[in-house]
Amino acid sequence: MTQKAEKEYRNPYPTVDVVITDGAGLVLVSRKNPPYGWALPGGFVDEGESLEDAAVREALEETGLSVILKEQFYTYSDPRRDPRHHTISTVFIAAADGEPRGGDDAAEALRFAWGDLPGYIAFDHRQIIEDVQKFIVKGERPKP
Amino acid sequence: MTQKAEKEYRNPYPTVDVVITDGAGLVLVSRKNPPYGWALPGGFVDEGESLEDAAVREALEETGLSVILKEQFYTYSDPRRDPRHHTISTVFIAAADGEPRGGDDAAEALRFAWGDLPGYIAFDHRQIIEDVQKFIVKGERPKP
Repeated sequence: MTQKAEKEYRNPYPTVDVVITDGAGLVLVSRKNPPYGWALPGGFVDEGESLEDAAVREALEETGLSVILKEQFYTYSDPRRDPRHHTISTVFIAAADGEPRGGDDAAEALRFAWGDLPGYIAFDHRQIIEDVQKFIVKGERPKP
Repeated sequence: MTQKAEKEYRNPYPTVDVVITDGAGLVLVSRKNPPYGWALPGGFVDEGESLEDAAVREALEETGLSVILKEQFYTYSDPRRDPRHHTISTVFIAAADGEPRGGDDAAEALRFAWGDLPGYIAFDHRQIIEDVQKFIVKGERPKP
């Protein structure tokens, strides 16, 4: 692992996204900030915070739900996946009881059935959702 | 996903590590820089570079091998996993023909049998290797 001078090294930002699912659908949040639209709850990982802690924290902040993480699903890193800057998102599959309620950066948080998703979903989150559905049905994860 | 001012936001560093395996063992590199010891080949992900591209690049730099990525295995993020700073490593399982040859930050690169690993392995790489062996034998990944 190369030692790099921090001031010269520009790195992608680690983030998390959470697919909160009961098997029949999932929770999406309506974003307060651009890019607008529905998206998976999630956000930046803080220094000193594990991905798992970040996933639980962001889910709670944006949906009001205390989630139980079931799977670390996959990590998405295409440099074009976020129009603002290069983010690398580790996606978790989680379960939670109760009704979601938007908070923090989320204006709204709602449960959607798989067959009734919003027409526009931000970032690469529609692809992530399709990948998770495939995993739930067939047990297959994306391949590098 | 929260929008943050870049100057105030300190994030963990995204890295990759690669388990280059033929099923019977794997390639480890002897580190030129502290912390010394044997470790998986890997390193920092550059801005604009996908995890997959970083894994192939780091494997080539440190072992001379052109790897084929088979699986994105798991992403490790315990803040204590690297004594220097908080790194989040996405681990790939890969295959490669030929004999490894140390390069870049690696003084040496050698193939080891699973049953004949070095006594000291840096970072959390022994845990990662054990997790990968379990995955190869049982198909089970770590749980969050």
